[in-house]
Amino acid sequence: MSTRTVSDLGERALIDRIIARLATPSWVVVGPGDDAAVVAPKRGTLDVLTTDIQIESVHFDCRFTPPEAIGHRALAVNLSDLAAMGAEPRLALLSLALPDAMEVTTLDGVIDGLLALARAHRVALVGGNISRSPGPLTIDVTAGGTVHPRRVLTRAGARPGDEVYVTGTIGDAMAGLESLRAGAGCERCEQRYLRPEPRVRAGLLLGRNRAASACIDLSDGLADGVRRMAEASHVGVELDAAALPLAEDVRQWHEARGHDALDAAVRGGDDYELLFTVRPAHGGRLKAVRRQIGHLPISKVGIVTKDPGLSIRTPDGVRPLPEGFAHFR
Amino acid sequence: MSTRTVSDLGERALIDRIIARLATPSWVVVGPGDDAAVVAPKRGTLDVLTTDIQIESVHFDCRFTPPEAIGHRALAVNLSDLAAMGAEPRLALLSLALPDAMEVTTLDGVIDGLLALARAHRVALVGGNISRSPGPLTIDVTAGGTVHPRRVLTRAGARPGDEVYVTGTIGDAMAGLESLRAGAGCERCEQRYLRPEPRVRAGLLLGRNRAASACIDLSDGLADGVRRMAEASHVGVELDAAALPLAEDVRQWHEARGHDALDAAVRGGDDYELLFTVRPAHGGRLKAVRRQIGHLPISKVGIVTKDPGLSIRTPDGVRPLPEGFAHFR
Repeated sequence: MSTRTVSDLGERALIDRIIARLATPSWVVVGPGDDAAVVAPKRGTLDVLTTDIQIESVHFDCRFTPPEAIGHRALAVNLSDLAAMGAEPRLALLSLALPDAMEVTTLDGVIDGLLALARAHRVALVGGNISRSPGPLTIDVTAGGTVHPRRVLTRAGARPGDEVYVTGTIGDAMAGLESLRAGAGCERCEQRYLRPEPRVRAGLLLGRNRAASACIDLSDGLADGVRRMAEASHVGVELDAAALPLAEDVRQWHEARGHDALDAAVRGGDDYELLFTVRPAHGGRLKAVRRQIGHLPISKVGIVTKDPGLSIRTPDGVRPLPEGFAHFR
Repeated sequence: MSTRTVSDLGERALIDRIIARLATPSWVVVGPGDDAAVVAPKRGTLDVLTTDIQIESVHFDCRFTPPEAIGHRALAVNLSDLAAMGAEPRLALLSLALPDAMEVTTLDGVIDGLLALARAHRVALVGGNISRSPGPLTIDVTAGGTVHPRRVLTRAGARPGDEVYVTGTIGDAMAGLESLRAGAGCERCEQRYLRPEPRVRAGLLLGRNRAASACIDLSDGLADGVRRMAEASHVGVELDAAALPLAEDVRQWHEARGHDALDAAVRGGDDYELLFTVRPAHGGRLKAVRRQIGHLPISKVGIVTKDPGLSIRTPDGVRPLPEGFAHFR
């Protein structure tokens, strides 16, 4: 049986193949296939736009990342950015650069994964382009959403005294990536790495309840997210090591390998949880978010300080949170 | 003197370097540097969105494409798509994948070229991302614009009897690319290849005057554009070879090399002119466009037919316009 490659099919046929699978909602005035997409704005909202690229061997490894996961992640990282702004996702555009020898079934898998996540979040794929890649498989997604003007979340609103929170658990994706590289270990962690769930509903609830003073998504780890938020807000942060939400299997994974689980969780990226701050007076608003959010845990992990330093309180005392957060035991 | 590379500087410094150069208009509620950009929609308009990628060795050759031209073209191809929809460009997002060894001055040049064109069209760069590339320099731009609901131009509106027009001259960019590869020849053509001018004003005027029944931009040549428009509109087209707008230097360039100039002009891509159709009754509207457009020529090049075939009338008779339009003399 001969395997068809994307260059056998050609650009036009590949585009038609994707377009045939799309459902186009009524607010899309001109959908995929014309020079550009035309969409009706949503009344009373602002537009939110973000773009993030995924490149083979930089952002994912085809040896252990199934095509569906590649497509899922390419959209998920963008929806996570929208979530961090408190936005409701609405549409996506897809730029694909494909190696000539890539099999059509692999491309189908990438599209499957992307469209499954798009459907789950009612995101319409409204445009894009396909190109030959002389190098790695490259997937660049631009995502657009909407947000009510008074519900925008930014990184810049944290003030001294605000409490610092994080959704879900951290360090899972890093353990998952290690597990995938090792060939086995922590199945739950692997899924967290391969199919991160963008915290769209959490971001929406934080915005709707006006509960968060600042918000950012954790793409490059907790330490990185804390640093970026603190810089944007011109404040410092003191984390509490004992309060960090580490899953038991992640703790075991790292301890079995002689690693400091806490260090790994603080540095490890790809979790796509939300890090946010809440004014002390807005505890009631956060309570409302907790009621509405269902099973997703929200953990208080620290406090915003006036002093611009970044630190973490451990059983051995308060230590600085260094660039890259190499070691702190 | 040591040359700094982009990996010497790192992602954060590179992003800060670009952001420092941007001016942000008042409708940008949250600009570059947060998780996503937030922009206020323009009252009474629809949003128009497009994305197009430029990859080294696929879309441009660094040996004869200066960095400024790479940046210019990356934005120009997207503005051309907006122009073809009758849209007014407004914003752009930029995804960059940079080889480690790329010099910072080269990146500066790419950004110079992109921002110069952005300024000329009052386009705000509102977001983006920078990533390492294990392969070629890759620039993916998403552009957004606005259009009044009744002024949208699509590919699908051509009807039998409509007249077919093209802006500017065609085949210039192909001759320019050949000239660049040869090391010299047609300086004007080279500039047309390196710094295509998206026909934004022409697209706007066609929409405002409601002059065009269909419109598409010529990225892959006249034959390709005619085919795509005809397919979308379920019609045929008969071109008139004698009416095609060939510049004298382009004609000479091809004839000096023993090529059929007409064939080259019909097949040659990268001109980014607009191809559009006009109802016979709307000659007055087109006249208004001509009055307002200034020096840009508009040439009638053919007629829309009910018969779905694509053909070209030459001194030797009517010939089919084949896929790729190999030869017709």
